[in-house]
Amino acid sequence: MKILVLNGPNLNLLTSRGKDNYGALSIESIEKDLRSEFPDIHFEFYQSNHEGELVDKIQKADDIFDGIIINSGGYSHTSVAIHDALEISKLIKIEVHLSHLVKREEFRQQFITARACNGFISGFKNLSYNAAVYLILKFNKTVI
Amino acid sequence: MKILVLNGPNLNLLTSRGKDNYGALSIESIEKDLRSEFPDIHFEFYQSNHEGELVDKIQKADDIFDGIIINSGGYSHTSVAIHDALEISKLIKIEVHLSHLVKREEFRQQFITARACNGFISGFKNLSYNAAVYLILKFNKTVI
Amino acid sequence: MKILVLNGPNLNLLTSRGKDNYGALSIESIEKDLRSEFPDIHFEFYQSNHEGELVDKIQKADDIFDGIIINSGGYSHTSVAIHDALEISKLIKIEVHLSHLVKREEFRQQFITARACNGFISGFKNLSYNAAVYLILKFNKTVI
Amino acid sequence: MKILVLNGPNLNLLTSRGKDNYGALSIESIEKDLRSEFPDIHFEFYQSNHEGELVDKIQKADDIFDGIIINSGGYSHTSVAIHDALEISKLIKIEVHLSHLVKREEFRQQFITARACNGFISGFKNLSYNAAVYLILKFNKTVI
Amino acid sequence: MKILVLNGPNLNLLTSRGKDNYGALSIESIEKDLRSEFPDIHFEFYQSNHEGELVDKIQKADDIFDGIIINSGGYSHTSVAIHDALEISKLIKIEVHLSHLVKREEFRQQFITARACNGFISGFKNLSYNAAVYLILKFNKTVI
Amino acid sequence: MKILVLNGPNLNLLTSRGKDNYGALSIESIEKDLRSEFPDIHFEFYQSNHEGELVDKIQKADDIFDGIIINSGGYSHTSVAIHDALEISKLIKIEVHLSHLVKREEFRQQFITARACNGFISGFKNLSYNAAVYLILKFNKTVI
Amino acid sequence: MKILVLNGPNLNLLTSRGKDNYGALSIESIEKDLRSEFPDIHFEFYQSNHEGELVDKIQKADDIFDGIIINSGGYSHTSVAIHDALEISKLIKIEVHLSHLVKREEFRQQFITARACNGFISGFKNLSYNAAVYLILKFNKTVI
Amino acid sequence: MKILVLNGPNLNLLTSRGKDNYGALSIESIEKDLRSEFPDIHFEFYQSNHEGELVDKIQKADDIFDGIIINSGGYSHTSVAIHDALEISKLIKIEVHLSHLVKREEFRQQFITARACNGFISGFKNLSYNAAVYLILKFNKTVI
Amino acid sequence: MKILVLNGPNLNLLTSRGKDNYGALSIESIEKDLRSEFPDIHFEFYQSNHEGELVDKIQKADDIFDGIIINSGGYSHTSVAIHDALEISKLIKIEVHLSHLVKREEFRQQFITARACNGFISGFKNLSYNAAVYLILKFNKTVI
Amino acid sequence: MKILVLNGPNLNLLTSRGKDNYGALSIESIEKDLRSEFPDIHFEFYQSNHEGELVDKIQKADDIFDGIIINSGGYSHTSVAIHDALEISKLIKIEVHLSHLVKREEFRQQFITARACNGFISGFKNLSYNAAVYLILKFNKTVI
Amino acid sequence: MKILVLNGPNLNLLTSRGKDNYGALSIESIEKDLRSEFPDIHFEFYQSNHEGELVDKIQKADDIFDGIIINSGGYSHTSVAIHDALEISKLIKIEVHLSHLVKREEFRQQFITARACNGFISGFKNLSYNAAVYLILKFNKTVI
Amino acid sequence: MKILVLNGPNLNLLTSRGKDNYGALSIESIEKDLRSEFPDIHFEFYQSNHEGELVDKIQKADDIFDGIIINSGGYSHTSVAIHDALEISKLIKIEVHLSHLVKREEFRQQFITARACNGFISGFKNLSYNAAVYLILKFNKTVI
Repeated sequence: MKILVLNGPNLNLLTSRGKDNYGALSIESIEKDLRSEFPDIHFEFYQSNHEGELVDKIQKADDIFDGIIINSGGYSHTSVAIHDALEISKLIKIEVHLSHLVKREEFRQQFITARACNGFISGFKNLSYNAAVYLILKFNKTVI
Repeated sequence: MKILVLNGPNLNLLTSRGKDNYGALSIESIEKDLRSEFPDIHFEFYQSNHEGELVDKIQKADDIFDGIIINSGGYSHTSVAIHDALEISKLIKIEVHLSHLVKREEFRQQFITARACNGFISGFKNLSYNAAVYLILKFNKTVI
Repeated sequence: MKILVLNGPNLNLLTSRGKDNYGALSIESIEKDLRSEFPDIHFEFYQSNHEGELVDKIQKADDIFDGIIINSGGYSHTSVAIHDALEISKLIKIEVHLSHLVKREEFRQQFITARACNGFISGFKNLSYNAAVYLILKFNKTVI
Repeated sequence: MKILVLNGPNLNLLTSRGKDNYGALSIESIEKDLRSEFPDIHFEFYQSNHEGELVDKIQKADDIFDGIIINSGGYSHTSVAIHDALEISKLIKIEVHLSHLVKREEFRQQFITARACNGFISGFKNLSYNAAVYLILKFNKTVI
Repeated sequence: MKILVLNGPNLNLLTSRGKDNYGALSIESIEKDLRSEFPDIHFEFYQSNHEGELVDKIQKADDIFDGIIINSGGYSHTSVAIHDALEISKLIKIEVHLSHLVKREEFRQQFITARACNGFISGFKNLSYNAAVYLILKFNKTVI
Repeated sequence: MKILVLNGPNLNLLTSRGKDNYGALSIESIEKDLRSEFPDIHFEFYQSNHEGELVDKIQKADDIFDGIIINSGGYSHTSVAIHDALEISKLIKIEVHLSHLVKREEFRQQFITARACNGFISGFKNLSYNAAVYLILKFNKTVI
Repeated sequence: MKILVLNGPNLNLLTSRGKDNYGALSIESIEKDLRSEFPDIHFEFYQSNHEGELVDKIQKADDIFDGIIINSGGYSHTSVAIHDALEISKLIKIEVHLSHLVKREEFRQQFITARACNGFISGFKNLSYNAAVYLILKFNKTVI
Repeated sequence: MKILVLNGPNLNLLTSRGKDNYGALSIESIEKDLRSEFPDIHFEFYQSNHEGELVDKIQKADDIFDGIIINSGGYSHTSVAIHDALEISKLIKIEVHLSHLVKREEFRQQFITARACNGFISGFKNLSYNAAVYLILKFNKTVI
Repeated sequence: MKILVLNGPNLNLLTSRGKDNYGALSIESIEKDLRSEFPDIHFEFYQSNHEGELVDKIQKADDIFDGIIINSGGYSHTSVAIHDALEISKLIKIEVHLSHLVKREEFRQQFITARACNGFISGFKNLSYNAAVYLILKFNKTVI
Repeated sequence: MKILVLNGPNLNLLTSRGKDNYGALSIESIEKDLRSEFPDIHFEFYQSNHEGELVDKIQKADDIFDGIIINSGGYSHTSVAIHDALEISKLIKIEVHLSHLVKREEFRQQFITARACNGFISGFKNLSYNAAVYLILKFNKTVI
Repeated sequence: MKILVLNGPNLNLLTSRGKDNYGALSIESIEKDLRSEFPDIHFEFYQSNHEGELVDKIQKADDIFDGIIINSGGYSHTSVAIHDALEISKLIKIEVHLSHLVKREEFRQQFITARACNGFISGFKNLSYNAAVYLILKFNKTVI
Repeated sequence: MKILVLNGPNLNLLTSRGKDNYGALSIESIEKDLRSEFPDIHFEFYQSNHEGELVDKIQKADDIFDGIIINSGGYSHTSVAIHDALEISKLIKIEVHLSHLVKREEFRQQFITARACNGFISGFKNLSYNAAVYLILKFNKTVI
């Protein structure tokens, strides 16, 4: 099983961000933790600060992966382009967020990209990613 | 470990609800499935159509349980009372939804009760509950 | 034929309410009047000030009744829970109001519960109920 | 007893309109059905696509009729002119709609003309008209 | 003189709530303090987390009490049902709040139940109740 | 000097309308009063309940009249068509209202047609028309 | 007959303001023009840039004057204080504006002070004042 | 092939309207230009300032024409009646505008009638009509 | 103990204002009543129609008084300047209103100055002031 | 004549997108079709999922092309950057859309980039592009 | 060179205000600092809590000064009067703020007075003033 | 001292943009002017039309520079990604704009990126940059 884990803008700098919202972690530690818990799954981690590169990556995912876990970061609230790319994809797609968005600034309360996913997990810090993988596995079994 | 699973209005009638949003399942099947996957956890399932009874139940949870999984159903979008009860509780609290709310009616787009929880999972049908238990367990280990 | 007539909060106190909006009448007089005009129909009148009890009652109606006439009173404008209960029910459902809501306060201008009914009658005081029964009978004949 | 039945824009083309919202019916069948059920009442049916003609007709109704049943169609949501004409009239006035407006497009959710009527009936297809006549008769008896 | 003191959801848990907004106090200490300051007045304290029970209680108050002091808690911002029950009551009614609501969350800025009271006191912690009793006594003298 | 006095919907029924907003007067009495006060001016009075007829009339005014006084009635708040017709006309145009609109219903607070006039007079009952004529005369002298 | 003509902020600098909205005129020329056209009326002209001074002046007007003409300038859109002072006054009150406000900036589209006047005249430059005097005289005759 | 070209209010006065938005042209020149470019098509040009007449015309078009090109003018932004008439029609329908509406006044930014058409062309002055004919022809070929 | 009682615009004219909202009273009678009930407290009463003078007065209060009771009148809904002055002051500050604001005009529903006070009392006519003094005394004792 | 045809995000995946909105087509087929119909025009087709690359391309177009046809896709509703780039360009610019945007999701109803174009064509699937070329040719002739 | 430095309400109390937003400084220290850095410029510092006095001062500035630096304080968000006074003035005008307004309360997010200035500087505490002087000097040189 | 000067979309084309808003200048002339006025400071100028590249650049600035001056151009109003990147950076950050944004289009009135800066300067054309450098220098001295 192959899962694409997409991280949007500024998620490469997790360590620097405020502890209140994100805890002390990095993409690398998230990746390491996922590989450790789910050794049988092939993960590709991809981070970009560029909206267009995220769109490019999503467009090419269908032939290679079985599911997408995406943290669109700051693009979550405005990007119709990422929304449309996700909507076209036939894979299972889960939007994850480290922080609990409904408790944050007003300008983070509009959810555009999430509308094109199958579900939404937010507020569990790095464990939001683990839960997403856990769910993709469960869905897989359910279908089989 | 003891987890309280709270279900709000109309979740006792899951089987009757539209397949598109909820699939064909019932609280009983959700309960059975959780007990099967997590045999070491003590679950108490409680469903009520009454906002006040949900508040009552949350108020008494702190001394008995280690965490709360709540699907506030129709009260998710208006109940300041449930919000306040959750906010007072010192337990870990996770709001779950069967359907993917951000894709539904306008009047389901305001999230009041979720603001008083630690995180939010929506769109994975019955598996939203499993993921919530999975996350409470993970958090527990992390802390230890 | 069996019809459930549901009355929401404060409708038990009709006599006390302002003459301008409601006239001088009571649930008892409405019930008596309906039985007198429609002697062949079995009516069950149920009033509650509790949102949850109204939800409970609606959930159990499908096996017993042929139609629901509901005056959700103050819950008409906010209750997603009653909305969802009505939506699940397979009976014909008519929302009635004694007063002509579109002429009243701003906070009575949002119609949540009515969206889950088949139709809406407001402004005819007690006769709103009579018209609802009249319509259920007509629909019945039409179908046959 | 004389009742004026006013039909606004596009109601002359009922048969052509979508079955979901209007069923398969015509003004003629509605008229025939009313005359059959209420043989003692004199009905005048008047349809116009012109806002001004509807205003003209309402202005002249007071001396001739005992009540007005009006389906303002698309003018229901914007016409202050029809609102004012109805407000001036001293007759009993009932606004009827074939479809259940609260479930339709956003631009049909503002009710201007209904504010100048005594009551509002919507969602019962052609039977909305029958209920309106039924109610005018009932009111008449009540007053006597 | 008899005064009904109504407390809405979560006010039974005052001790647990955040010190910033509520101070360290309980309903019991409020009751004790009132009885101590106003020994000649008969107080009935009633707390419920159920919107419907608060409506029930208000409906029965007119024959028994001389005034109502109500802290509707989280229902203050949405409950048309409590509003209507208060509006029907002929007693003097005062809405009190421990915290200073105009400084809190956006979703606490709509005042529905207060519109049906004679006045509004907020921000003085437990003393909001004392001031309400003080005012009922003053009004009483004024009238005499 | 020739002035076109346009009256929109329901102004032909002034006598019937509520005394509070309009006083007891008619178009005829307004016309008579203007002719009496301004005997040297040629007035054409035109009333229509039809938005299109008002547009037609405005379109033909430029070659015949020196100024337009218009009371658009209920069309004042929505008619882009009348707005555009007035905007095209090169005459001096004054919008008049009998009642003081800023004190009335919310749906009368948007001013579309007035934006295409040179000025706005409202609240002086029939004298709003007199003031408009007075102003057209003054402007005429000023220019000369 | 005595009329108080109140001018709000910046109206003392008319000559300096943009020609498009105000033409080339001054308070002095307006005053001179009024005295010339209405020699029998006693005018008191008062201008202030201070909201409070305008309130003071209005409060003292009732015993001295027969009517108030007010151009509240920039305070027209926000001053509840001037609104309340005008509302208390028993005199006839007319709000005038030199420019045609409905065609100007968004922040000039809320009319607070005008709601407490008897009528509203805007867009006729200095002649708005003349029309106001003309109307006070007419009203006077009408009453007599 | 037969095409109905409908023009709404004030389009008969094109020559008089501001050059900035409409250029110097007339309905007649538009008609002449279309006939010249598309000699094989039968065009019927119909202009009316009356909302109801436009509705009437649309209602009768289905049996006679192959397509409708409509410039609803000022009615584009408010007319639910024209919207409904277009929605009922089974012909191909294209809304055209001479000016580029998204750059104009706020009150021209709501598109009601366009929602019932197949497509929307705006901003090309008279050539918006030519493009609409061009497109109807192309669609015709595509289907064949 | 010294208390500053600030009254904003138009409160000097209480007797003239509508009985419905304010009863028949004056600042003088309020002052007399307070001195009579609380003879040991030194009151300074200050009224001004000028926003700036109220700001001036608040700025100088800290060194002289123990508390501020303020009825900002019409400035309550817009004055950021008074808000800021109150926020800077270290005294206990209570905003009082004679009328029950939540039941009045829309433009009185925004509370700016109250946000900088410790609490809010409205609707008890002159007794709102008495309750404010009563509360300042109680707080004083509590602290001691 | 040289025309730049710009396609924004996800338009490279047309074939995969929902048939309802886009039909079964690709950029390649659109390009081929244009070259076939307009053999004398030099087209450059450029697609990018990157907002910045579209801005880059527009900036360099003025010296090379005679006109721009742009389908900004998901960037149409938010990109001030593309808007500004288009506004700076001196070429004729036409925004095209395959689907009829006014009938789609709420978040597609704001038109930012179109404001900087000369006109707007939407709803004709691939033929929207053909019509844009047709119009550029017509404009060219008109000017010559 | 002469510069008028205007400070609005509560800026005389800078020392008392919250350190977070304003630092520990006073108007006097700002003045002293400016004179020290720009010894060749004649500064007049004027502070008032009165909206009208600020308007008065601005009106008289044109003949005396070469530029205005204004910190309108709490009036920045509502004062149309100050806006209009600034708009009339022909001097260079710069609005300065000590705190970074875009990060503060919602009611400080509307900028009325700034619209009538040439530029806006906010967030640099006392140095906002220095930068304004620096810019006036630079502009002066540029023009020469 | 090292300062990074970031310029967003379309700022590379300054010369081409409208004189009204930007004057006749280029990034090169701005850079030259800064180096001339502040010869001791090391400036790096970076311009990009790509949101992601601006985010990349900001992320790498902390180790190299002492401060950031950013003109986010069209991204100022929507980019949560740039906002988050700036928020993470520990440098002093100043947002500058050539034009005076509060006087421009509605869609330029939301300030997202500025919220993550220390201050905001807009309206002084190229001199906005000079003032930003001036302020960074001043802050530096202050701290030392």
